Amino acid sequence: MSRRRALFGGAALVGGTAAATVWPATGAAAEDADARSGDDATVGSDTVPFEGVHQAGVVTAAQAFSTFAAYDLTVTEPRRVVGLLRILTDDIRRMTAGRAALADTAPELAATPARLTVTLGFGPGLFTTTGLTDRQPTGLTELPAFPAIDRLDPAWSGGDLLIKISADDPMIVAHAHRMLHKDTRPFTRLRWTQRGFLNARGAIAAGATGRNLMGQLDGTVNPSTDAELDSRVWAGADAGWFAGGTTLVLRRIRMDLDRWDELDPAAMDATIGRRQRDGSPLSGTREYDEPDFTVPDATGLPAIADFAHIKVARGDGPARQILRRPYNYDDTPTADGGSDSGQIFCSYQADIAAQFVPIQQRLAERDLFNQWTTPIGSAVFAIPPGSPADGYLGQGLFA
Amino acid sequence: MSRRRALFGGAALVGGTAAATVWPATGAAAEDADARSGDDATVGSDTVPFEGVHQAGVVTAAQAFSTFAAYDLTVTEPRRVVGLLRILTDDIRRMTAGRAALADTAPELAATPARLTVTLGFGPGLFTTTGLTDRQPTGLTELPAFPAIDRLDPAWSGGDLLIKISADDPMIVAHAHRMLHKDTRPFTRLRWTQRGFLNARGAIAAGATGRNLMGQLDGTVNPSTDAELDSRVWAGADAGWFAGGTTLVLRRIRMDLDRWDELDPAAMDATIGRRQRDGSPLSGTREYDEPDFTVPDATGLPAIADFAHIKVARGDGPARQILRRPYNYDDTPTADGGSDSGQIFCSYQADIAAQFVPIQQRLAERDLFNQWTTPIGSAVFAIPPGSPADGYLGQGLFA
Repeated sequence: MSRRRALFGGAALVGGTAAATVWPATGAAAEDADARSGDDATVGSDTVPFEGVHQAGVVTAAQAFSTFAAYDLTVTEPRRVVGLLRILTDDIRRMTAGRAALADTAPELAATPARLTVTLGFGPGLFTTTGLTDRQPTGLTELPAFPAIDRLDPAWSGGDLLIKISADDPMIVAHAHRMLHKDTRPFTRLRWTQRGFLNARGAIAAGATGRNLMGQLDGTVNPSTDAELDSRVWAGADAGWFAGGTTLVLRRIRMDLDRWDELDPAAMDATIGRRQRDGSPLSGTREYDEPDFTVPDATGLPAIADFAHIKVARGDGPARQILRRPYNYDDTPTADGGSDSGQIFCSYQADIAAQFVPIQQRLAERDLFNQWTTPIGSAVFAIPPGSPADGYLGQGLFA
Repeated sequence: MSRRRALFGGAALVGGTAAATVWPATGAAAEDADARSGDDATVGSDTVPFEGVHQAGVVTAAQAFSTFAAYDLTVTEPRRVVGLLRILTDDIRRMTAGRAALADTAPELAATPARLTVTLGFGPGLFTTTGLTDRQPTGLTELPAFPAIDRLDPAWSGGDLLIKISADDPMIVAHAHRMLHKDTRPFTRLRWTQRGFLNARGAIAAGATGRNLMGQLDGTVNPSTDAELDSRVWAGADAGWFAGGTTLVLRRIRMDLDRWDELDPAAMDATIGRRQRDGSPLSGTREYDEPDFTVPDATGLPAIADFAHIKVARGDGPARQILRRPYNYDDTPTADGGSDSGQIFCSYQADIAAQFVPIQQRLAERDLFNQWTTPIGSAVFAIPPGSPADGYLGQGLFA
């Protein structure tokens, strides 16, 4: 039992420690937290189990790379969609265990799964296309427009089917993506592909919060205990076939890094409400200090201003808390030489309308940070529960 | 002293072992080979020294990620180019040591260099633009046209100035790229940016040959000893200011993975002349067996056919050997759904005309592999020697 496993296993037992707020402190997640370290020379051979009540890749400790590929269906009959899902599930079952997909001409590339997970999502269009709108999960709703902030590009938005491919090695992500894309093509039209990254495995301390491309620690506050995940992330037993599923809101958020650079460090920290240096709230001294919005600064004003990102995002308490799993993106600079970088914001929650939308509405109205961030893509997906043994992902929908 | 350091240090002493053919067996390279393993939990804090006779990032054990950014100069006066090079060298000196560049608003991101190297290259246009054509290294020549195979896109070709940013963590690559791009913009126009990757650090065994996206082991044969590097890669004392430099040929080679998939495994191996499974030549049994073009197969024909890639590439012996440092690229599938993947082929050699061109001419004429690969970008750069202490990269050119 390694030091990290002891640490995170311990956190799982006692719950509510600082460490436990970083990684979901379930048994499986404790294993994941251990896997975050690169110091056991098994980066390539590590696997994440495919089987389970939930799909892998949601509460799994975030892998260093994720490719998100969204497709629109070109078939409408449910039996043909089932055919696609059976093929994809077979691919996923094999590749996440380090075995090659059928007809893989480069099976050697499959031998280093590097914690590969593949997570499938169903957009609202999948339910419409297949005539199954009455089975659409109640937690899955399209987002309202946020005209004050959104500059959405259809090229980065929507989609009937999401395939999220995550691993600690870009080679297996590329290879798994190719295998899955080949099998998906005959049934679909590609809508968009987004590639995200975090720190390489082993580049920062195991369990440490990662930074985004602005330099901020991102992901300090997240539901973590099994009880929190069950109440805020996973659909409950009353969700019928969708019990054990969740929903994903994916927003491509461009950061205006060049204009952000013009701020002085104090203004940056005031905008967020935390210190960039160590992630501590301006009311406290350490990253995991609970923000106290009543603490004054030297001038007598609240240390965390009303417009600060963490104040506006926090809103009315933890019950609506969402599980954030952001990735960074960094594309080629634009023709005028400016940066094209930002975040693939991902949040998982049981109910989009009840949890994500109120937070986003507050942020759209009052978050000063909007000056430097622009949502340019948006999509929502139902993430079905885990596959039955010997069954396929999404099977409950078609049963 | 770790097991790997012992192994590679030993190889450096005795020379010519199988292991020594994988990584340049110099003292610095032995350190690099050690650094390839992810099992010491220092992926983020590892550094590669900036100072040296040669620029870092050429014989450095290949980092997992490289971004190549090519610019055309919009200034012509040598003193202004010197100004740019001084700024870039200052950035590089700081960031490769894990310190932030001046005016970095996210200095925290610089604290995990992850073996960051930044290597500068000068295209033929830099010498023309600054009126220094008489000082252009003799080893740097434009490539002839290869009309039988080339389908070059200007959007992936040429450039006066190359900035190559390599590290084991995509976060530091993105951050260093942004810092360097900001400082380069006022003097240049961006020409192209290419992003490449290999296996993540620790994903395959330290010192093992990586695979390309077709699944082939790529990089088995490379110059490795100091003597080989001195005679084939580095410009000698007769090169004047360029002594200790080298040249880079960068070719963006698209792989038609979808059509390649239609071959059966035996045809794939015959095309290359090696077995995909373990990289062994068809005349032998192990990756590092020397190919023997006289060994027959069961039918009495040569086991390695005359058209095989390794036979055609080998040509007239090791004196013309080049140092290959390829990266993989994987872009978004095209509008018709096909893959857009391949290799950023990089070769370093003392003299492009004498070493690279003859190999490439043979390959263009006779390599069966051309059926599945298409060069779509091409550029050549002089890689100046290392910076004088307290000086700047390229200083010899302007002295």
